[in-house]
Amino acid sequence: MIASDKITYLDNNATTAIDPAVLEAMRPFLDKYFANPSSGYRFAAQVRDAIEQARERVAALLGCEPGEIVFTSCGTESNNTAFHSALEARRECKHVVTTAVEHSAVRKPAQELERQGYEVTVIGVDKSGRLSLRAVADAIRPDTALVSVMWANNETGVIFPIEEIAQIARDKNVPLHTDAVQAAGKIPIKLREVQLQFLSISGHKLHAPKGVGALLSKLPEEQSRVRNLRDRFEKALVEKIPNARVNGAGAPRLANTSSMMFDDIESDAALMMLDQENICCSAGSACRTGSLQPSHVLSAMGLVNEQARGSLRFSFGRFNDDKDIDRAIDVVPRVIGKLRALSPVSAR
Amino acid sequence: MIASDKITYLDNNATTAIDPAVLEAMRPFLDKYFANPSSGYRFAAQVRDAIEQARERVAALLGCEPGEIVFTSCGTESNNTAFHSALEARRECKHVVTTAVEHSAVRKPAQELERQGYEVTVIGVDKSGRLSLRAVADAIRPDTALVSVMWANNETGVIFPIEEIAQIARDKNVPLHTDAVQAAGKIPIKLREVQLQFLSISGHKLHAPKGVGALLSKLPEEQSRVRNLRDRFEKALVEKIPNARVNGAGAPRLANTSSMMFDDIESDAALMMLDQENICCSAGSACRTGSLQPSHVLSAMGLVNEQARGSLRFSFGRFNDDKDIDRAIDVVPRVIGKLRALSPVSAR
Repeated sequence: MIASDKITYLDNNATTAIDPAVLEAMRPFLDKYFANPSSGYRFAAQVRDAIEQARERVAALLGCEPGEIVFTSCGTESNNTAFHSALEARRECKHVVTTAVEHSAVRKPAQELERQGYEVTVIGVDKSGRLSLRAVADAIRPDTALVSVMWANNETGVIFPIEEIAQIARDKNVPLHTDAVQAAGKIPIKLREVQLQFLSISGHKLHAPKGVGALLSKLPEEQSRVRNLRDRFEKALVEKIPNARVNGAGAPRLANTSSMMFDDIESDAALMMLDQENICCSAGSACRTGSLQPSHVLSAMGLVNEQARGSLRFSFGRFNDDKDIDRAIDVVPRVIGKLRALSPVSAR
Repeated sequence: MIASDKITYLDNNATTAIDPAVLEAMRPFLDKYFANPSSGYRFAAQVRDAIEQARERVAALLGCEPGEIVFTSCGTESNNTAFHSALEARRECKHVVTTAVEHSAVRKPAQELERQGYEVTVIGVDKSGRLSLRAVADAIRPDTALVSVMWANNETGVIFPIEEIAQIARDKNVPLHTDAVQAAGKIPIKLREVQLQFLSISGHKLHAPKGVGALLSKLPEEQSRVRNLRDRFEKALVEKIPNARVNGAGAPRLANTSSMMFDDIESDAALMMLDQENICCSAGSACRTGSLQPSHVLSAMGLVNEQARGSLRFSFGRFNDDKDIDRAIDVVPRVIGKLRALSPVSAR
């Protein structure tokens, strides 16, 4: 086994380590308080109370009412449930609007709807990964059952203007779903100000265990700390590595995500060499591992296949520090240099 | 908080305590080995390997191939997925067969199918809770898309002859799904001998945590130990309490379940008084708590409303011992006696 303390983990958009405080808080429910919360006796009521407390905390994180929270077992189930509920409520409407850069947990249900006879309008993005509000407004029709637009992109960190999109959907009287799995815990979400119908989050992306989601956020100070780490990392890489650039650099982005493109390399080879150095990062999303296709997100941003396949995603989190950045700044340029020296393309 | 060591927990069909050995086995994945198993690096591969090992263990428990196991987040998701897959594969068939005593995790999707235009044939049971094989055979039609019959009942422990039902379904070329949530870990399941298409189990019913399922079973010795506890409990209660009887007594039953009917009491009042004595048991299933309707299972067995509402379910598990039984044999008759002394019906 590779010990976790030997690892430089720069893949926090794939999943995060559980915060010891979270593990501490859940521990009693793993041994002592095991009752089924639906049972009638007091031994179960205390589990039910703990769930309600968790519901209040999630509501506080999102700025909404506890009664609006439905716990699911993951972000994917949350997305599917939102789609199912929205379409059931508007059975006569057979049109859905979404974007070209959604996570597969939204793309797949959208594709399934197409098979079922729905029409799906997929809105593209510009070179920086930005969405046109005009395109969203134009896509909505009288028979639109649902608009589903992610809040922040898992590959590039690009943030979409959900406030404005919610306003457009509200004006047209169409429900809006947003996959906020990457946004939650990284940018402020205030649902009292942004009025939308469905929002999905996932605990394991914010230092809770896989399978659940509930914790309070130390948002402001933590995000400026992570942003400093990320900015130092990007600046050093762009300086040390010729022909390196940040995907989505021109757009509003999450503070923790670096999607970087390096000419004349194959990301799979880079990942393997970084793995040998115990650096964990990814090419696109983890859910795409093993797929030979270039990222649909980077393709939608206009990158040609070679550029998309030469891109790596580094995502930072609560447990990254300056030492991790020092290590990455040392190792990544070396790996890219080695790969280019071997590459028939860059040798030309 | 009520400490768990003060509790006599006789509600193991609702949920079970996590086995300390299971907690020990999962602990490393809660702190050290947190990677997303879909990621490409070695730090993730060791998580992937652990999942495959768990898959092999579940396959060993069920007597099937590891490749046949699909992990879900709970029994309900498993049931829903089975329904969805079976119906997708036979889109032209719009008829489903099920029984009157299924858990709500099967009844609800069946009711949803009816709303969608499917015809659902619901097979009843006899007074002992037994199913007629002839009724199953007669219910299957050329347009039947799926037969769904539970392996063992959560309220009474009555075991259905799934081997024979699988044979009937196979002869008629119709897929069979079985909700084996209560059977798994309590009776031997050998899927190499019983050929069926879909089988659902749930970890939290067999001393794994809520949300997952994978452990090896110490089946034979454990079940005979639990059966001894259960038999001693039932014998004492029938002796000490007039007009008490065991629901489903005439049928093959799980070794751990006692569904008992007491004339002239209301189960809700009994549960409250038992709760004051720190005894946890239930009336019907936990998922029915708060509902004023009598158990659909007991009603299907021909109990009138007063009888169904006078029934309690005691379900035993790995962590019950003779001391628990002694305590229950002391307390339950006292509580039933008190309730009857207060009851206007029995006073008459």
